Amino acid sequence: MNRSGKILGKSSPFKLVDEMLKGSVRALSRLITLIEDETPGSSEVLKRIYYHSGNAYVVGLTGAPGTGKSTLMDHVAIELKRQGFKIGIIAIDPSSPFTGGAFLGDRLRMTETLNEDDIYIRSMSTRGNLGGLSVATKNVIKILDAFGKDFILIETVGTGQAEVDVMKETETTIVVSVPGLGDEIQIMKAGVMEIGDIFVVNKADKNGADRLVEEIETIFRMGFRSEEWVPPIMKTVATKREGVTALVEKILNHREYLIGKGLLRTKRMNRIQQEILEMVNAKIINEIIIPIREPYIVSEKLLDDIVLRRKDPYSVTEEIVDNIIEAFQRSPKGVNQIGK
Amino acid sequence: MNRSGKILGKSSPFKLVDEMLKGSVRALSRLITLIEDETPGSSEVLKRIYYHSGNAYVVGLTGAPGTGKSTLMDHVAIELKRQGFKIGIIAIDPSSPFTGGAFLGDRLRMTETLNEDDIYIRSMSTRGNLGGLSVATKNVIKILDAFGKDFILIETVGTGQAEVDVMKETETTIVVSVPGLGDEIQIMKAGVMEIGDIFVVNKADKNGADRLVEEIETIFRMGFRSEEWVPPIMKTVATKREGVTALVEKILNHREYLIGKGLLRTKRMNRIQQEILEMVNAKIINEIIIPIREPYIVSEKLLDDIVLRRKDPYSVTEEIVDNIIEAFQRSPKGVNQIGK
Repeated sequence: MNRSGKILGKSSPFKLVDEMLKGSVRALSRLITLIEDETPGSSEVLKRIYYHSGNAYVVGLTGAPGTGKSTLMDHVAIELKRQGFKIGIIAIDPSSPFTGGAFLGDRLRMTETLNEDDIYIRSMSTRGNLGGLSVATKNVIKILDAFGKDFILIETVGTGQAEVDVMKETETTIVVSVPGLGDEIQIMKAGVMEIGDIFVVNKADKNGADRLVEEIETIFRMGFRSEEWVPPIMKTVATKREGVTALVEKILNHREYLIGKGLLRTKRMNRIQQEILEMVNAKIINEIIIPIREPYIVSEKLLDDIVLRRKDPYSVTEEIVDNIIEAFQRSPKGVNQIGK
Repeated sequence: MNRSGKILGKSSPFKLVDEMLKGSVRALSRLITLIEDETPGSSEVLKRIYYHSGNAYVVGLTGAPGTGKSTLMDHVAIELKRQGFKIGIIAIDPSSPFTGGAFLGDRLRMTETLNEDDIYIRSMSTRGNLGGLSVATKNVIKILDAFGKDFILIETVGTGQAEVDVMKETETTIVVSVPGLGDEIQIMKAGVMEIGDIFVVNKADKNGADRLVEEIETIFRMGFRSEEWVPPIMKTVATKREGVTALVEKILNHREYLIGKGLLRTKRMNRIQQEILEMVNAKIINEIIIPIREPYIVSEKLLDDIVLRRKDPYSVTEEIVDNIIEAFQRSPKGVNQIGK
């Protein structure tokens, strides 16, 4: 029995895949954990799962803490389910304490609102390496997809590069804002105005909703977007389920638009290309460069020289890279061992 | 005249360095822009500046939007200045719209509160590549350091991996919270409890301040920190400058503690080591891997096969990495050209 077999007890990863494909939610959850933890064997699991994926449509919701986007997403999920779709939810839980309680909110939500069949919720943390969240999210999307979900809804608070990267995985991106959070606070910067396919003004029964809609429209009239799709600005009151059906209609419209124009396929191809480039970089760094650079990297003496300003770190970096290149070419056998 | 000379007009980068070292704020600002934009010649500038750096002490302030940390930082800066220190401030401006107005707040502040000599403020955006902010911040710290600043204060909202990485650059980290933002919201997760050297309960004249102090103390009593330094919990009312002098005293205490125990030097050595590792990785990726991988990367046909689930991206990645290794070893000349 190999190492992954040991870790997983009697369920080998491949057995879990089989069970998951047959509909076991328990196997689904265990597989996600296995992939998140990068348990040995997880890359073989991903290869196998990949051939069962490709059907799910990914919708992202982003917005500040306090915009009510968790509640909105719950109702979007429920409405999509009512229409016969199978739904998966990924709630991004930032690792920082300063996020307006998204984490606890989600936990609460899970037990209260969404105790329904066919809606699977998974919280994910931004904890970990740079880019780690983005990679982990991609993987969880593929597992939920292979499991048979029609729609995967992803919720982030939208701050930080990691969350912005997650939004690159979505096919329809919904940007949620609310009146009264303070106008200056909510002035949209180009970054999010560009990624939003649908804009939602939630809590639209509050004062200032119309003005917020107008402000968003004004930004659009500045005309920095070139596609044919004109992002609709929807008003909702998530707590009362108002506007949710119309929002879901817009999501379906946007999906039809992307499919009709061949843009969904282009998006997916670009995304896979990007994903492969990132995996190639990571693989070369982790499996080749890091083992090779070991002997060249920074002795205490060298660090001391740098701290005392007898050397600078930039010149030292250049020397190390030169040494790595040399070593790499001198020892093809070593490399082939390492690279495998 | 080389390209960087052209871009910068009559001021060559090196001339700017000379002017900056003589005390020109204008040259300082232009150098920072030059480094941020990665203008050709900037790596030579960094090498040169490095030998003039090493004196500044870096203090980080992090906390949720609405904790008043900008105001607090202003007054910390003013108090340090009063004690005869030269101060630089780096305000991290997250690229997202959902950050509680830190950006506009900073802008406002700069013109209003801090129109004082010897306090230089620079806003930085999280926009850009993963890790870009962290690298850019490191560089700006070094420039401000070489310029002669004694203390560099860095402010972030603390959400997102990029901001957490920035806090790795600080020598004393201050975590700011306030009563009444909602207890659940502010429950500290281990990540920030671990990086805080000083905890501040700001707006301490509001209800619930004492309870918040107790909550933080309770977390500490759980005893997950092993150093001798026991993070003090300070109460401040930044808008009234209350508690600021005591806070500055704690900052100076912490600095003395780090220096006395030899920990400052260890911190700086570890940081330089980490920085070199990152630069080595980036250099190898950008200058060697990316040019080499070009011919092996993902044709439209291949992408099509992947989208249609005839191939999987993981196996394709493995093939590409194998090809790159082979090409790398086959053509040393090509590599040396590329690597330089």
